[in-house]
Amino acid sequence: MSHYPMVPGHEVVGEVVEVGSDVSKVRVGDCVGVGVIVGCCRSCRPCESDIEQYCSKKIWSYNDVYTDGKPTQGGFAESMIVDQKFVLKIPDGMAPEQAAPLLCAGVTVYSPLSHFGLKKSGLRGGILGLGGVGHMGVKIAKAMGHHVTVISSSDRKREEAIDHLGADDYLVSSDSTRMQEAADSLDYIIDTVPVFHPLEPYLSLLKLDGKLILMGVINTPLQFVTPMVMLGRKTITGSFIGSMKETEEMLEFCKEKGLTSMIEMVKMDYVNTAFERLEKNDVRYRFVVDVAGSKLDE
Amino acid sequence: MSHYPMVPGHEVVGEVVEVGSDVSKVRVGDCVGVGVIVGCCRSCRPCESDIEQYCSKKIWSYNDVYTDGKPTQGGFAESMIVDQKFVLKIPDGMAPEQAAPLLCAGVTVYSPLSHFGLKKSGLRGGILGLGGVGHMGVKIAKAMGHHVTVISSSDRKREEAIDHLGADDYLVSSDSTRMQEAADSLDYIIDTVPVFHPLEPYLSLLKLDGKLILMGVINTPLQFVTPMVMLGRKTITGSFIGSMKETEEMLEFCKEKGLTSMIEMVKMDYVNTAFERLEKNDVRYRFVVDVAGSKLDE
Repeated sequence: MSHYPMVPGHEVVGEVVEVGSDVSKVRVGDCVGVGVIVGCCRSCRPCESDIEQYCSKKIWSYNDVYTDGKPTQGGFAESMIVDQKFVLKIPDGMAPEQAAPLLCAGVTVYSPLSHFGLKKSGLRGGILGLGGVGHMGVKIAKAMGHHVTVISSSDRKREEAIDHLGADDYLVSSDSTRMQEAADSLDYIIDTVPVFHPLEPYLSLLKLDGKLILMGVINTPLQFVTPMVMLGRKTITGSFIGSMKETEEMLEFCKEKGLTSMIEMVKMDYVNTAFERLEKNDVRYRFVVDVAGSKLDE
Repeated sequence: MSHYPMVPGHEVVGEVVEVGSDVSKVRVGDCVGVGVIVGCCRSCRPCESDIEQYCSKKIWSYNDVYTDGKPTQGGFAESMIVDQKFVLKIPDGMAPEQAAPLLCAGVTVYSPLSHFGLKKSGLRGGILGLGGVGHMGVKIAKAMGHHVTVISSSDRKREEAIDHLGADDYLVSSDSTRMQEAADSLDYIIDTVPVFHPLEPYLSLLKLDGKLILMGVINTPLQFVTPMVMLGRKTITGSFIGSMKETEEMLEFCKEKGLTSMIEMVKMDYVNTAFERLEKNDVRYRFVVDVAGSKLDE
């Protein structure tokens, strides 16, 4: 795969240039994607249930060791060899650079909404934090027919959330008046904040049976008092990317809804600058590296 | 209601001695029960969904203020007047003193198992803490056809759990070897511990999609790191008693399964001693006060 752009690491889109003799899923010339995982054991309960992202022997698409003992090198490369199980056809008409961020950020949001019974219209959802995953959260939740509130620590992203991403409402978490008015109003919150934060203000926003779905890997313990969950039968949960099956579903869903990611396309020689900007959270919302295009420029 | 025993406070069983003109649910002479709640608003979303235990205007059966402005005095009395909505017929053949602890402890366990889709055979459940609620947890989970593991801080209750209550296994939480062997083995844990405790040892015991169901009101924040829930799509949740509808279902379930609570019946003059023993956790598993019987003795 070499003629399409890709996102560093684990959201890869490219063209099939060669297939093995047993490959039936894709053909040479197809535009395909590869996500976070390139291997799994195929015999454990998660693998047998088609949720191989929870296989304890899954192989990451970068910085892991493949079945042949060699390192996996991710999508930040001119080409890669991938088992067909972990290759997805990008739907016709979807721009490859738009598709790339769906393969992790998109399915990370789509999977829990689908799994926890929230893929139905009329719900009220909250998206906490507006980064790569959060912006896909707004778009996917809106496409599912939800009323979407973006919750953020400052007012800085209000216009962005409402005017550009289509959110219905915007809450600043330090505005206690508005937070109190919004109590008991949301069916779920997708919490994308990747650092320690209190949970109680957000548990309060949830309705009876509401779900707080954590997406940020946080190794500082988060805290809550039990009445906050018991008295409204609320749920604190989390999930981890999504399965190949869900990723396929999500790509079809995005195609059907005309839903795309918001990206900034860059060439290879911009990568170091891109990383510096990433650290400052200065991107809307994913850099996509045009590897093939960069090569042609050399 | 005066000719039947009752549990102090909120698990009351008695005989109907008089009914209002609009009462159709029970008749004079019926053996009936009253649980934790004796009033609700009847128009909010929980009330309209028949889960009135989550109504924010619910009236507790003791130590609350009734619609007439008078205090509610619970079941620790010779008689009480209760709206028929909050009265349950005790199934024929069920001993009233056995039925009483089902009205809170029983339904508190039954409700989440039913609500969260766990009322089906073949599951593996854990019961953390073996008190009034925990002992009903073992009995109800066994009656649902589950493999039940009691988890406790010491070995003290092993024989009790296995020989008397019928649990299948017993885990001491400080036994790190056995805790590690049991990792990833339970579909749910009913956590009845009412004081601060770490959650991670118990989250580790859960399988993929496992549920940690909190029952103890704990106002010291409990803690967890997000990968503990995300990587197995685990759920931390809790629930609060159960609805009248679920209580009815639970009573029928207990009758059908021949399931009873384990109690110690005492007379009124033993109440102070009973409270002292309660504070030392010295009861298997509920004291039932025979109010009517005590009166006859005077």
